[in-house]
Amino acid sequence: MQLAGPEHIILPEPTLRRLPWYLAYVETLRERGIENVSSTTIAKALNVDPSRIAKDLSFLNLRGKTRIGYDVSALADALSVFLGFKAEHRACVFGTGSLGKALIRDKGLSNYGLQIVGAFDIKPSLTGTTIEDVPVYHMTDLQEVSQRFRPAVAIITVPADVAQEVADKAIAAGFRAIWNFSPYRVKVPEGIVMANTSIYAHLALIYNRLNASND
Amino acid sequence: MQLAGPEHIILPEPTLRRLPWYLAYVETLRERGIENVSSTTIAKALNVDPSRIAKDLSFLNLRGKTRIGYDVSALADALSVFLGFKAEHRACVFGTGSLGKALIRDKGLSNYGLQIVGAFDIKPSLTGTTIEDVPVYHMTDLQEVSQRFRPAVAIITVPADVAQEVADKAIAAGFRAIWNFSPYRVKVPEGIVMANTSIYAHLALIYNRLNASND
Repeated sequence: MQLAGPEHIILPEPTLRRLPWYLAYVETLRERGIENVSSTTIAKALNVDPSRIAKDLSFLNLRGKTRIGYDVSALADALSVFLGFKAEHRACVFGTGSLGKALIRDKGLSNYGLQIVGAFDIKPSLTGTTIEDVPVYHMTDLQEVSQRFRPAVAIITVPADVAQEVADKAIAAGFRAIWNFSPYRVKVPEGIVMANTSIYAHLALIYNRLNASND
Repeated sequence: MQLAGPEHIILPEPTLRRLPWYLAYVETLRERGIENVSSTTIAKALNVDPSRIAKDLSFLNLRGKTRIGYDVSALADALSVFLGFKAEHRACVFGTGSLGKALIRDKGLSNYGLQIVGAFDIKPSLTGTTIEDVPVYHMTDLQEVSQRFRPAVAIITVPADVAQEVADKAIAAGFRAIWNFSPYRVKVPEGIVMANTSIYAHLALIYNRLNASND
């Protein structure tokens, strides 16, 4: 019997939000030398319903043992592979302002399978420079760079007023996923993967809740 | 009549997610010199239902004019103030690895009202250094720094296995909001504001959808 890999299952978004929590948690257990963990223990630690955890983990085709639970190391590895963190996904960063540079410098992303192969900026003075060994190209080289490296993920950190234009160009050049860090709500055609990391929306949430708790 | 400020309204999360989109959009209009905008135009640009936009904007006590719409400049200012982006919110970064440094260097955050007044790390060699003029303190100075600057927001970028411990210490020292960038699901007591920016969950989502579209 062939196990279904992640490439064959479109997972529900809430499951995809929770699986990295489980991974982070079991990795802390592994570092502490703990060998087995039950879904009840995970549930308590993360404040998630145990039956939900069992259901989420059932996607992995990994069985826990009665009264012992899951093998911590096997679970961590399975989660990491299943989530795609062990594969290589090529990406380019659009915009090399402070956030763009920050993402290029963040080693965390490459640990999670994202390989940034290039950055784009419209400032001619930046063309040909590098940021942590990542070459900076001019936007006019987009087509050529895309054909050479076949990156799939376009990380958008340009100002809001050009975010849509840059995303459109990336898609036209063959990028298949837009990871939007700009506050602009970028629209993409059917079949293009879209993820928003809304730093400013999270700030707005924090401010609103903080002020409300001041009353 | 006194207008209700944001400090008196706990806004629903979806509204807080959409308001920054409207702000980013009307700011692009302002930069292009456009003076008025209708909720129908905003709706089309952002792919949001017009009645939802009207309802979201009704929190602002700002009325659009029939057939003219909203004054772009007034709307941008009102949204920015309402979302708390014009106020000063003091924050500390916990963990000065690549992501922590990145957030300190990101000028965008200060444009949105977040002032990072200090960073914490456990490496003694870093104590006393600065990152873009932000002083790095040792965790043992937490209480003192917190009392001196009264920062409200603790930005957690430490490794997953110490995220909970660091958040607990920050809360004990008087921080009232946890902004968690670690993949660990940090738990906080009642009354403490919690926001997760789940970069790794977004990566997992992108990978899953990309692989599914490969089939």
